[in-house]
Formats: sequence, structure tokens, C-alpha cells
Amino acid sequence: MATRTQVCIIGAGPAGLLLSHMLHLQGIESIVVEQQTRAAIEGTIKAGVLEHPTVELLGQLGVGARLRREGFAHRGIGLAFGGRRHRIDLHGLTGGKSITVYPQHELIKDLIAAVLANGTAIEFGAGAVSLHDIDGIHPSVRYTRDGTGREIRCEFVGGCDGFHGPSRQAIPAALRQEYLKVYPCAWFGILCHAPPSSEELVYAHSERGFGLVSTRTPAVQRMYFQCAPGDQVDDWPDERIWAELRARMANDEGWTLKEGPIFKKDIIAMRSFVCETMQHGRLFLAGDSAHIVPPTGAKGLNLAAGDVALLARALGRYYRHNSRTDLDRYSAIAIKRVWRSEHFSWFMTSMLHEFAGEDAMTRRFRRAQLDYLVSSRAAATSLAENYVGLPFVGVE
Amino acid sequence: MATRTQVCIIGAGPAGLLLSHMLHLQGIESIVVEQQTRAAIEGTIKAGVLEHPTVELLGQLGVGARLRREGFAHRGIGLAFGGRRHRIDLHGLTGGKSITVYPQHELIKDLIAAVLANGTAIEFGAGAVSLHDIDGIHPSVRYTRDGTGREIRCEFVGGCDGFHGPSRQAIPAALRQEYLKVYPCAWFGILCHAPPSSEELVYAHSERGFGLVSTRTPAVQRMYFQCAPGDQVDDWPDERIWAELRARMANDEGWTLKEGPIFKKDIIAMRSFVCETMQHGRLFLAGDSAHIVPPTGAKGLNLAAGDVALLARALGRYYRHNSRTDLDRYSAIAIKRVWRSEHFSWFMTSMLHEFAGEDAMTRRFRRAQLDYLVSSRAAATSLAENYVGLPFVGVE
Repeated sequence: MATRTQVCIIGAGPAGLLLSHMLHLQGIESIVVEQQTRAAIEGTIKAGVLEHPTVELLGQLGVGARLRREGFAHRGIGLAFGGRRHRIDLHGLTGGKSITVYPQHELIKDLIAAVLANGTAIEFGAGAVSLHDIDGIHPSVRYTRDGTGREIRCEFVGGCDGFHGPSRQAIPAALRQEYLKVYPCAWFGILCHAPPSSEELVYAHSERGFGLVSTRTPAVQRMYFQCAPGDQVDDWPDERIWAELRARMANDEGWTLKEGPIFKKDIIAMRSFVCETMQHGRLFLAGDSAHIVPPTGAKGLNLAAGDVALLARALGRYYRHNSRTDLDRYSAIAIKRVWRSEHFSWFMTSMLHEFAGEDAMTRRFRRAQLDYLVSSRAAATSLAENYVGLPFVGVE
Repeated sequence: MATRTQVCIIGAGPAGLLLSHMLHLQGIESIVVEQQTRAAIEGTIKAGVLEHPTVELLGQLGVGARLRREGFAHRGIGLAFGGRRHRIDLHGLTGGKSITVYPQHELIKDLIAAVLANGTAIEFGAGAVSLHDIDGIHPSVRYTRDGTGREIRCEFVGGCDGFHGPSRQAIPAALRQEYLKVYPCAWFGILCHAPPSSEELVYAHSERGFGLVSTRTPAVQRMYFQCAPGDQVDDWPDERIWAELRARMANDEGWTLKEGPIFKKDIIAMRSFVCETMQHGRLFLAGDSAHIVPPTGAKGLNLAAGDVALLARALGRYYRHNSRTDLDRYSAIAIKRVWRSEHFSWFMTSMLHEFAGEDAMTRRFRRAQLDYLVSSRAAATSLAENYVGLPFVGVE
């Protein structure tokens, strides 16, 4: 049983759904193939920070109404170290930009609703997804659903299926240069019922390591702290978590963490990964299928949005003008912003964590970097412009 | 044979001479004890970049006339990588500041002349220098000269005798926290007779490693390139040097290196070192005796000037007001600027060199850092403000 479409998109994460929607707005037809169920992807807790360019893009695409209503715009972040809390004035340092706290799974709900309203099919629960003939002119995607083998014949494939998906593997290994860095730590994340401890996110560094006080809603808070890479959720009973978070947030200013019942715990791996190239034949990778960042820079979802903004416009130009010029240089252009965000995420991670086995001088350099950041307008501006998001490349 | 003075200064490098001169201007008497001969210290080729605050200070002290006449003010530096040369507009980015290229041994000549004109004794060729009773109220410095043991009894000791001098060792080991980082490379430096290749210094990064085109005079040029830490001068015949420098400076812009007879070759170790504390009892360390930077940030001499500016004023206040308050916090205040410069020097070194055994991702992060630096005004401003020199601390 074969179906035809213009673009087959593998993966109904932010990248795949946004790509489908942007193509639809340009009159290009797509089908989205997703391994998981709708309930699963709408219920998985992930990132929550949207960059300024991401929010602008979602607004332009008509999918920003709920995030504008229910999301929280933050004009600054806190940077806590050495017993004091400093503020990075994102808004003032970037000429009026801010970030928006809006959970990724809420954005997923908005995008699924938009894609389905477009009349585009999303094939949830697709098993054994495989890519075929991507370097020919008639690529196809095969999968099973409800026990039946299916095939989508298409003109292009959007590989938006994340780090573990089949898309990247469909590029011959000899043509892929993969870069990987695994950090010797992980993040322990919790969700709890409590009021916000701070009006803005607080990134904390202490000799015990990194901590982050984030938020979801006025009643639900998200917090993280650096843990050992081999730690399991069960290693951390609630009281140990609060004791550790209190220690990481220790300060001389009387500021205290507001605690409450923890209802979710998870552990997040810390790695940097980039695949060059991001395209092969008629396959184009976007988002986590091509690159992973450690979460410290809050860049993952935003980097996916940047890829898609570029790719959707390149596909639009192809269909309007029958020219492959923009498609041919997609990877070369997208990769610049990818490396910028990868470097920033590494920089934030290196600056805010403590790693086993580091020498004393490396630790003092870290403190010197932090001291400089909160004393130099130029240094703070550099952090701020990266954090709120540098402009999407190649997008007019 | 004992002589008495208020401050005995060990070392007639930039730190010691400047300290003596600044004390003299405040009516405080000193004697300078130097292991080498005058001819040796006036003839040793060292650094050549003076920060804006250093030049300002030397001018205020009446020792800036020749450097203003014969030195070269540079309003920018070049940053060459990826086949292109970019310019960091130091002057434009820092509100009108610049650096001055003036060889350290010329500054030494100016300072020796000033100190001798003050009527201050400089004991050149002093052997077996030792410090005594620095934690009592009557410290002394002993040494031999012309075969005779001598002693200077004083109220304070200025430890300006460099990394290998006895001053730092006079602080009990248990009270010193020393930080050391040795880089797995060295700098090969040359002096040659040639016209300048560039109006401004060019810091170059290539896959072959670091290169630097500096200058001394319109007829004498100073150039450096990263070499292996075990390299000897004899490993590098002239033709090999030029071939390597040409390769490091390779570019797509037709810019070429102006070559000429090499008349001096030297190898410079690359390390970062900090001693905390910088004081004990009546001993105060300044300059290389307390800290070493790799030369990439051009900070060594300037950091010494910053220490001395603070220390001379603290001693001045002690003698005027009989208060040790400023002396007691000398190290705590000086160390902040030390760590800033140490971090900057490490940053420049990490960004511009290639180190054996690095993974591919680390190399790409380096390139991402360089690309960002020349595309972001905030990032370029951060480099510029550090390079021209942040204000001396605690100096009004």
C-alpha cells in the first residue's frame, strides 16, 4: 500500500511538525510519520525555554497564540555563585529581547493541532521506519502500522526523527563526519508542586556543582542539578534532592528555595553531537537527528526551529522556482548556527559545572570567568545575545 | 656591612624599578637589589606590548616620554584564520584606547635611568640573595657583591624577583596556594631585519598551530610560532622557520610575509602560574614572582605594572597615615586583576593554538569561537577591553 506526497517527514517532534506546517503554508504537501503515539509525545516532559527568534517564528506561522497567552516572558536570568545572585539583563543588553518559558510538550500539542487542521496526516505509532532511494529522484519511506507494511513515495524526506532515529543512518557513513563529546556528569531533573522560588530562572554554580531553578507554571516548578553520569532516579529520595538543591543554591542573601511535593524525576544525559553533513540526496536532517547540545544553553528546541526555518524556505523556493540552489547549500548554511549554539552550550556547561579530576587552576579560571561575566557589559552582552538567540541564518 | 632603607626591592625588572620610582615620588626611600648586571637586563629581549593603563601610568610617573616618542601606538590587531584576516578595532570598541608596542628592555633602560636619577641605589650583580625576618618588624635582605656579604635592613621588602627568585619561597609553603598549568607547546621567537609585514600585530590560527607577526621598529620585526615544548633553537634553521611562518600565515588574500635575515632566536615556555597569597608579613610580591601568564595575551609586564600601582599606593598610605589597612588587603585586591588576566591569557592561548591529542569537536569549538569573535560586536568588545587592559584595581 503506497501513498504519495511531496515531502515525507519522519518524526513528529518540534522539528517535524514545524516543517510540515511551514510547508503547508507554502502550498507544499507532506505526511508525518511518527514512531510513538500521540499521547506519548504530548505527555513527555522536555525543554521549556524558547528563544526570541523561535517565538517570533511561531507567531508568524500562526501557532503562537497559546504560547503568548500561557507562556512566561522572562527579561533576565539569575547567575548565582560565590554566595551571591547576579542578574543578566537579557532585555536591556539585547535591545529588548527576551525568552519565553513554555513547556515543549505544550508546543507539541499546539503544532499537532495545527498540522491536523491543515489536513495533513500524521502516522502515529509507525514501526520499523526505513528510508529508501534517497539519492535517487523517487525516495520512499516504509514502515508498519497496525501490523501492515506501508510505504510513502515522495520527492523529499525530512529527517526529523531525533538522535536515535533512522534518518541520519541513511546517509552513507563515509559521507558523514560525526563529532561527539560526552560530559562526565548528568542532570537530575524534578517537577514539583510549589510556588516559584524566583521570578526568573537561576543558573547556580557552587563547589558542589551546577543547579538550575526553572519554572513551568505558577504552581509547578522545574529544577535541575548536576549528578554523576551513572546515577539512577532511585538513588535520589526526595529529602536528598532537597538537601542537595539547598546546598547548591546556598547564598548570603537570605534567598530560599520554595519546596513542595515532587511528582516527576528524570535524568538527562549531557553530550554534544554534530553530524556533518546535514543532507544527502533528497534527505534533509533537522533538529536532534543532526545535532545534540547539553541542556545548559537551553538551545535544543531552538536549534531545531532554526534548521526548519531554513529548510522550509529552501523547499519553498524549490517548488516555486524549480531551483535546487538553496536546498544544495542547506547544510552548509545551517551548520554555522549549529556550531554557534554548540559552542555556546559547551561554554555554559564548562562554566557552570564542576567535573571530577579537574585541576585547581581550571576551577579558578571558571570562577574568573564568572566574575568577569557579571562585571563586564561586553561579556554579559555576549552571553545575553546567545541566550535569547542569535538571528536565524539565511532567513529573510 | 648593613645599610638601612625603608623598602628593599629585590629585582630590577619592570616591577622592581617601577615600584622604586613610585615610592620615590611619594618620598619613600628604597634600594634595589638585582642579581644580573645592568648590561644583561638592558639587553634581554622580552615582551613588547604595553596596555593602555600601563602607558597612562608611565606617563603620570614622568617616565613615558621616550616610549611615547619611539613606541608605536596600535589601534587594532589582526586575527587571521580560515584563510582570511579580520581586524579587531581596539580603538573603536573601547572608546578610544590602544596598545603601544615598545620593547621591554627599552622600558627597562628608561626606568633604570629614572631610578638612578632619583639617587636610589641599584645593587647590580648581587649573589645569594636571601630574605630574613619578613614576619617580624625588622626584615632584612642579605646578598653578596664583589665577594663581600652585605645586608639591607628595611621596613618592607618588595619581592619583584621573578618566577625563579627567592622572594616567593620566603613565604612559608603552608601559607601559599600555588596554581600551575603547563601547556603542551612553546613559542619559537625570532628577531629579523625586515620591514613590517603588517601595520598591526597579526594573531594567526591555522591547523598547523599558532603564529604571531609582531614588530619592534620599522627595520626590525618580531615573529613567533607555536613549536613543540621540547624543541631546541638548533632544530629550526632559518629556511625551516620561514617555511613554517609562511604556512601559518597562509591566506586567500594575497597578503605575504616580508622576510629578512634572522639575528635572534629564542624559545618561550608556556605556562600559567599564580601564587596566593601575594604577601606575608612585611614582604609583598609583585609581577612574575607571584604569577606567570602564557604570552598570548601580552599581559606579563602589564600585570606587573598593575600590582606595583596598587602596592606603591598602599605603601604611600602607610607612610602618610601610619595605617596598614591598604597593605593588609593588597593581595586580596591585586589577585582579582591577576585572575582576570590569567583567564584572558588562557582564553587567548586555548583559542589560537592547536594541542596534540585534542578531539575533533574541541577543534571545531575553537573555530566556532573564532567565527563568533569576528561576527559579534559584544564578543569582539570583550576581547578588545581585555587586550587594551582593564583598569588597574584599587587605584584612584
